[in-house]
Amino acid sequence: MTYDVTVYVTWKEGVLDPQGTAVTESLHKLGYGEVESVSISRMLQLRLEAAPEEVESKVTEMCEKLLANPVIEDYRFEVEEVVST
Amino acid sequence: MTYDVTVYVTWKEGVLDPQGTAVTESLHKLGYGEVESVSISRMLQLRLEAAPEEVESKVTEMCEKLLANPVIEDYRFEVEEVVST
Repeated sequence: MTYDVTVYVTWKEGVLDPQGTAVTESLHKLGYGEVESVSISRMLQLRLEAAPEEVESKVTEMCEKLLANPVIEDYRFEVEEVVST
Repeated sequence: MTYDVTVYVTWKEGVLDPQGTAVTESLHKLGYGEVESVSISRMLQLRLEAAPEEVESKVTEMCEKLLANPVIEDYRFEVEEVVST
């Protein structure tokens, strides 16, 4: 089966997000003082072949090993089956 | 009113995503040959104060001016009102 998986990798609570801080400051300089905060994270879209019973465990493994840094980042993902037409 | 806005910035169709290619190759080297493709994009979470009638136009402006590069990137966003408890 073919799956489209969307992985959201976000900063753990309390971890500094320097890129987000920089964008907040840039927005303030552009006149958008009403912006309180910006947090920037990654969204990964994977297409993969897997058996239905192993797709979640495979993606969890990939997240732990490569796609996220579990020390400072959280991740969650959504799995969608690709239906060939 | 306070709003939480989530902006998704993705590559336009046909634009090369070198970071995604690199991650695909790394996954293959780790033994995940079943991964066909990986595309990496940004997710920005903004908190801002705005009048209900201007929040969408404000965020569109910010996307066009700073948050996305409209030449090579597409963006879409979701607006959610922050209800203080």
